[in-house]
Formats: sequence, C-alpha cells, structure tokens
Amino acid sequence: MSTAKAASVEAALERARKHRQQDLDDLIEEASIPSVSALPERRADCRRNAEWLRGRFARIGLDAQVIDVVAGRPPLVRADSPSRSGRPHLTIYGHYDVQPPDPLDLWESPPFEPEVRGGRLYGRGVADSKSNHLAALKAVEHLAATGELGVDLRFLIEGEEEVSGEALPKYLRETSDHLDTDAVLLWDGGFDEYGRPTLATALRGMLYVEIHATGAPVDLHSGTYGGVAPNPANTLARIVGELKDRDGRVTIPGFYDDVRKPSDEELRAWREEDGRYVEAVQSITGIRTLEGETDRLALERAGSRPTLDVNGILSGFVGSGQKTVIPSSAFAKVSMRLVPDQDWKKILASLTAHVAKLSTPGVDVRVELLSASPAVLAGTDSVAAGALRKAFKETFGKDTALVRVGGSIPVAVDFQETIKAPLLISGIDEADTAIHSPNERLTVEQYHLGIEALIRFIGAFPAR
Amino acid sequence: MSTAKAASVEAALERARKHRQQDLDDLIEEASIPSVSALPERRADCRRNAEWLRGRFARIGLDAQVIDVVAGRPPLVRADSPSRSGRPHLTIYGHYDVQPPDPLDLWESPPFEPEVRGGRLYGRGVADSKSNHLAALKAVEHLAATGELGVDLRFLIEGEEEVSGEALPKYLRETSDHLDTDAVLLWDGGFDEYGRPTLATALRGMLYVEIHATGAPVDLHSGTYGGVAPNPANTLARIVGELKDRDGRVTIPGFYDDVRKPSDEELRAWREEDGRYVEAVQSITGIRTLEGETDRLALERAGSRPTLDVNGILSGFVGSGQKTVIPSSAFAKVSMRLVPDQDWKKILASLTAHVAKLSTPGVDVRVELLSASPAVLAGTDSVAAGALRKAFKETFGKDTALVRVGGSIPVAVDFQETIKAPLLISGIDEADTAIHSPNERLTVEQYHLGIEALIRFIGAFPAR
Repeated sequence: MSTAKAASVEAALERARKHRQQDLDDLIEEASIPSVSALPERRADCRRNAEWLRGRFARIGLDAQVIDVVAGRPPLVRADSPSRSGRPHLTIYGHYDVQPPDPLDLWESPPFEPEVRGGRLYGRGVADSKSNHLAALKAVEHLAATGELGVDLRFLIEGEEEVSGEALPKYLRETSDHLDTDAVLLWDGGFDEYGRPTLATALRGMLYVEIHATGAPVDLHSGTYGGVAPNPANTLARIVGELKDRDGRVTIPGFYDDVRKPSDEELRAWREEDGRYVEAVQSITGIRTLEGETDRLALERAGSRPTLDVNGILSGFVGSGQKTVIPSSAFAKVSMRLVPDQDWKKILASLTAHVAKLSTPGVDVRVELLSASPAVLAGTDSVAAGALRKAFKETFGKDTALVRVGGSIPVAVDFQETIKAPLLISGIDEADTAIHSPNERLTVEQYHLGIEALIRFIGAFPAR
Repeated sequence: MSTAKAASVEAALERARKHRQQDLDDLIEEASIPSVSALPERRADCRRNAEWLRGRFARIGLDAQVIDVVAGRPPLVRADSPSRSGRPHLTIYGHYDVQPPDPLDLWESPPFEPEVRGGRLYGRGVADSKSNHLAALKAVEHLAATGELGVDLRFLIEGEEEVSGEALPKYLRETSDHLDTDAVLLWDGGFDEYGRPTLATALRGMLYVEIHATGAPVDLHSGTYGGVAPNPANTLARIVGELKDRDGRVTIPGFYDDVRKPSDEELRAWREEDGRYVEAVQSITGIRTLEGETDRLALERAGSRPTLDVNGILSGFVGSGQKTVIPSSAFAKVSMRLVPDQDWKKILASLTAHVAKLSTPGVDVRVELLSASPAVLAGTDSVAAGALRKAFKETFGKDTALVRVGGSIPVAVDFQETIKAPLLISGIDEADTAIHSPNERLTVEQYHLGIEALIRFIGAFPAR
C-alpha cells in the first residue's frame, strides 16, 4: 500500500471511530423500515427503503438511482462513483429486503423498532443484511470525507433477495456489457461459529416448492364423512413425511446422484473441526441432538450435502379448541438446498413424480415451483480475496476461514454467469444473530469493526 | 290418540302454518348470534344466545334459567313446563353453540347474517343445530297457544357441544336425581342422504388430541442449519402421515381390536344400499373417489368403523411467498371417531406410545388430550320412539330409517349413564346442509315441517 493510501485509511478509521453514534443511528433508521419483500402489503415500505438508500448514496457523492426493473416489484438501488479511468473497479452487492418477522409474539422488542440491549442491536434485518451494506456505505463515506477514493465503486442493492426475485438477475443479464468490474463483493454473509471472518468457497443453491393437496371441494364433517371422505391433510402429511427417512436422508429418487464429493482436504479439515462445530451449533441454537445422515460429518452435511426442509404447513382448523372437520385442502412449503452439480430441473421432475405416487385415492396433488437456483463455487485465490483477508486480519486479529456456506444467494449464479470477475462472498453478521428468526440481532461492536474492515479493504483495494 | 289431543294438534298445526314467517324470522334472529364456543372472544355471544333462548322459553310459559355450571364457560339453558303430576315427561336436548365459520372467504354470504336464497336459509348454525331446538320450542309455542300441553317438558340446551364441554355432563351427574323423565330426545341429528328421517341405533364416540412436535427453541435459517437441525414440521408430517395406510386403515397398534362387529342384518341392509349411498355422498360432497378400508362397504366404514382424521395442522411460515426457515415447532389436531366397545383410554395410550416411536432425533413429541367420549348404542323399540316415527311418517310421508350415526354427541353418554330413560337420537337437518363447513344451509320448508312433526310428536306424546 502506498503511503498516501495508508494515510487516507488511517484518517478514515479515525473519522469512523468519532462517528460511531451516527453510524449506529443510521442503521437503526434503516432497520426501522419494514421492507419485507414477501408481503405485498409491505411493497411501499420496500420502495421507501430503496429511496432511503438512494438518498444516503447521493449524500456521499455517488451517482445513485432507484431502478424499477420489474413493474410492481421492489426496485433495485444502483450507485456508482464518478468514473475515473485507470482506477480499479469494485462492485458491492447487498439487499435491503428482509424476512417476515413472524412469529411476532416471540420477539422481546418490536421487530421494526430496533433496540440496543446488552451491547447488541435487536431488530429484523439488522444482521441480514442491513448492517452489511450500510457498513460498506459508511466505509465509503469515511474514506470520501477524509481523502480521495482510490477505487471506482458500484453498489447494487436489491430488494428481492429473500424471495428470489427476478429483478436483479434480469438487470445483470440485460446490462452486463456495462457492468465491467475487477471484483464482486457479495456482501451478505457472515462470521463462523467460532467468531472467525469467512470467505465462501461454495454456496448452496435452492429449489423452493409448494405442495398442494385437495380433497372434496368444501370442508366436511368428520363424523358424517369420516371413513369415506379423502382427507388431504392426512395425505399431505403422508407425502411430506415420506420425503426424508428417520435420519434425515432425502428419499426423492436420484436426489443424491449428481452430488459432487467434497475434496479430501475439506473432509480432513471437517473431521478435525466437527466436534467443536457440533458443540457450537448446540450452544447457539439450543438444539439437544443434531439431525442428519448418520454416516456423514455434521460439517459435511451443513455445507456440502443437499437438504430438504418443510418451511411451513397449513390445513384445516388451527385455532384453539376442537373443530371436527375434514379439510378440503392442505399445503406445505418445502425447500431443498442444492450443492454443486445437482440439476434442479431433474430434481423437480423426480419430486413431482414421487409426490404423485405417494398420494392417496381421491386426493389431487400438485407441486408448484416458487424458485430455483443452482449452487455456486467461488475461488478464493484472487488478489481482491487476499486484500479482504488482510483487512479482516488487521481489524479482527483473526485469519479468515474458507468455508462452504449452507445458505444460498441465488443471484450469485447470475453474477457468476454475467460478470467475469472474482466473486468474494463474505459479510459481517455473526453466527448467532438469529437471522430469519425472532429477536434477530447483531453485536454493535461487530458493526463498527465491519466498517473499519471495509475502510481497510476499499481504501487499499489493489490496482488492476 | 284421544279426540281432544287430536284437536289440539290440529289447532297447533294450523297456527304453525299461519306463523311461518315469524318462525323463520326467529331462526334468523338466533342464527345471527355468533355463538362460537371454540373461540374465547365469542364467549359474550354465547351468553347472549343463552339469554335469548331463556327469553323465548319464558315467553311461551316455561320456567327458564341460564345456569353457569362451570365458571367462565358458555352457560346451560334449562326450561321446564310447570309440573303437572301424572302426565308423561319428555326431555329435549339441544345446543346453541356453533362451529367456527372459517374459512370465511368461501362463504357466499356472511356466516352470521343468515340469508334465504332459492328456498334455503344460509348461515352458520342454521342446520347445526339452531333449527332443531328452535323447531322444538316453536312446536311447544303453537301447542301451548292453542290448547293445554298433555306432557311435561324439560329443555336442556347446552353451549358447549362443539367443544365437548364439561358443563352439561357435570350438571347431569350432579342433579340427575331431579331429572326423572320418560324419554330423552337428543335433537341434534338429521335426515339421511335419501331424504328420510332417521333414528339412530348408535353414535360414534370421539377421541380428540393435539400432537405437538418441538425442535430448536427458536426458528432457524434453513441454509445455515439445514442438514444438522431437526425439523419438527418434517417430523410431525412423518408421524401424522404414518397414522393411516394408503387406503385409510388406521395403523395405531390395537386400534381395531375391540371393535364390535355389525349384525348380519345391518351388513345385509348396507350391502343393498351401498351403491346408492356412495353415489349420494359423491353428489352431496363433490368427492370423486371415496377413501377407506378397501375390504369394507362404504356404509360400514361411515357408521360402524372407527376413523382417524387430521382436522388441522400448522407449522412455520404459511403466508404467500418464501421463507427459508426451519420451524421451532409444529402441531396437528387429530380426532378419532370410536365405535362400540372401543376403549378411548387404551387407544390414547397406544397412540402416545406409537407417536413417540415415530419421532426423529432431536424432536420432542407430546400428545395432548382435548376430549374423549365412548360410542353410544340406542334402542329404537320404546313407545316414545314409535310415536316419533309416526309423527315423521304423517309429516314427511316417509318411513324412518334406523341408522348408525357417524358423528358423535358426547353428552349422549352422560344422558345414558345418568338418566335411565330411552334415548331418541334424531333431528331435522338434511344430509347436504354443509354443517361445520362454509355455506351451512337448511331448506326453509324442512324447518317448518320439522315444527309440524314435533307438534305431532309432543302433542300426542304417549302416556306413561
């Protein structure tokens, strides 16, 4: 790093340390916007969040726009630094949409009234992923306020990550000629169970479906018709219950056929760490006994094996007390995490055929595709990756762990296919932030150190 | 029947025919009260319904009371005619509570704003069971207005039939010494699929449970923890799906052990009628293919065989779109209809053990008993039964079918055990009234003819 760059980074770090309260207040302000992309009634809040971000990017000197890629859907926020030819170029991806907050009664403070308790900030989206993109915005703010940016930047902050929306993929495919860059920071990840920063070597893909079962056209009385009327709730339970065996192995024919085996090196590392990982998961989640294929390591199952989970199921009367009804219909939301070399189209076809076979007389079953994306592999040997690891080390005093990420960032596939630049998949949320769950949280210090790490990374971004 | 009795009946019938509009208006008024016993927020409406009935009984000269048998629960309505020693005594049972109206969006008119369309009255409770007890009240009104009642009467109208409440059973057991009677009319049944009045030879009993499955203390991210976290929604589906085989045979060990076989005579009759019955069920319900034990007649399954149905199931995220969550818990409402000689305690114990065996690592499963009542057998050869069949024949021009009723009236057990008098189990709602379902309805003419049948039955009630 040049002396000028180093001085600029130091000045920015100093400014960040002085502006901690303001930086936190801004995170609280953004996390107060209930930008739930899954709920149509929150569409206006998604737009409000996008406009809020546009304003913040403009304020720090970026050329920012709110782009309606798909009419009626949450818009995309794009912000570019004024172009200076010859400088290296970095693209930073994030998302401003959040998961629905239910079940609401389990929150200790309202999900969209972020509150600091015991050094942690509680609220929906504070970890996934508003702290991530806001830390990046703040790093640029502090760098720009104390010197000149040595890098050209492009932020792409989407509003449909949680619903695997079409907007950003469409935008990337239609404008990729103009999106040249030297590296893409997919800044929606986090630290591992032992508090180490991570860089992903792979992301799982996803196949998300709804299974619908229908019996009689109306609910029926279970006394009058019990014994002769088909019950789609029983049938759906039967179908869904059969999709995994007792140990958690998925039973869809051919499901594991194309799964790429982990490398010997990965297996060796996982074998060493597995005991510690199991303990960490138990401690973070409160799970007593882990589930899953008994002949595989827990780390292997969580990162390199495909999975199947029921995310929701509903039929009939679910209020308190008794209703003696044979429901007319039932549905389940079922998602599968996919790993490298699995083909979601093949799996969807096999699942559909399998489900049809498991149905019972008089019940119609239908599998509806909600979204699909393949798994992604990412290299970690680029110059940019080296710079990020260095920034992490200087800020957190820790080496970066190279991990397979169990979660999915569907748009990673689109970045990989449209922009030929290294993908850096990382982020700052901790392992126990309860993302997607009640009482989502982030350690306030982690947010501030995240800003510092990004100041170091962006401020010293390597020349082409 | 004496000439005086016959004249009194004729006068009452004439009055009923003149007051049809008023009688219908009263049914609409009572059915406008949302007396849903399953919903705590409807408790005040249940009381309002009870008070409404008390007022109506008092207006026709009965000594009526609203009795709080169990504090905080819907009260019991009791109404007695002024005692006249030497006259025969008839007890009439009914219930003013109704099923929850959901799913609301399937109703063509609001459930608690009863509306006549095409000769039918639509609204929650119009068939089950407000038309029944109101027809009895109206019959007494017309008889009392045109002559002297030749019978002593006692109405017991409870508010917890749909939730198998404790109040009436407790009341019957604690005051049975003072409840002497010559017959009990359990007036909560109806006509069969071919439009014939019925008298029940048996009622199925019921065992209603909730099965709860719990995994981690909070919802988890399915990407981060898929493959290692137990998923109670998958496990509950697995358990519930295993409770019946593909044909609908219940798999709980010992479930069928004590089932009393139907008589040869019953089997003969069912064999003859089965084709017609299957067609009638298909036409009324819209079911394409019936379910159930393939080696049994449909009529046998619907009346003499025990059943198991999921009445409701819920877990995780069930809104529109995608949430990638591993739910923390899941539950299902499961009810079993029991037949003579089955012991619900034995079955509950076997179910509980079976469910525990079907669970998966890391998931806790719990079976919670909501209610239980054994099946009931009723004789149909009493003088009172003969009188009811005669009244039906004169009014509807049809012979009464002796049937096994698939549904349950839990309190029938308590009547049988506490009051040693013949039980007449019958009623006027038609087979296609969609009770417990959206768009519950009753043919208006059926209600008026029901009043006439009861005028004949009560007006000519046989002397002891």
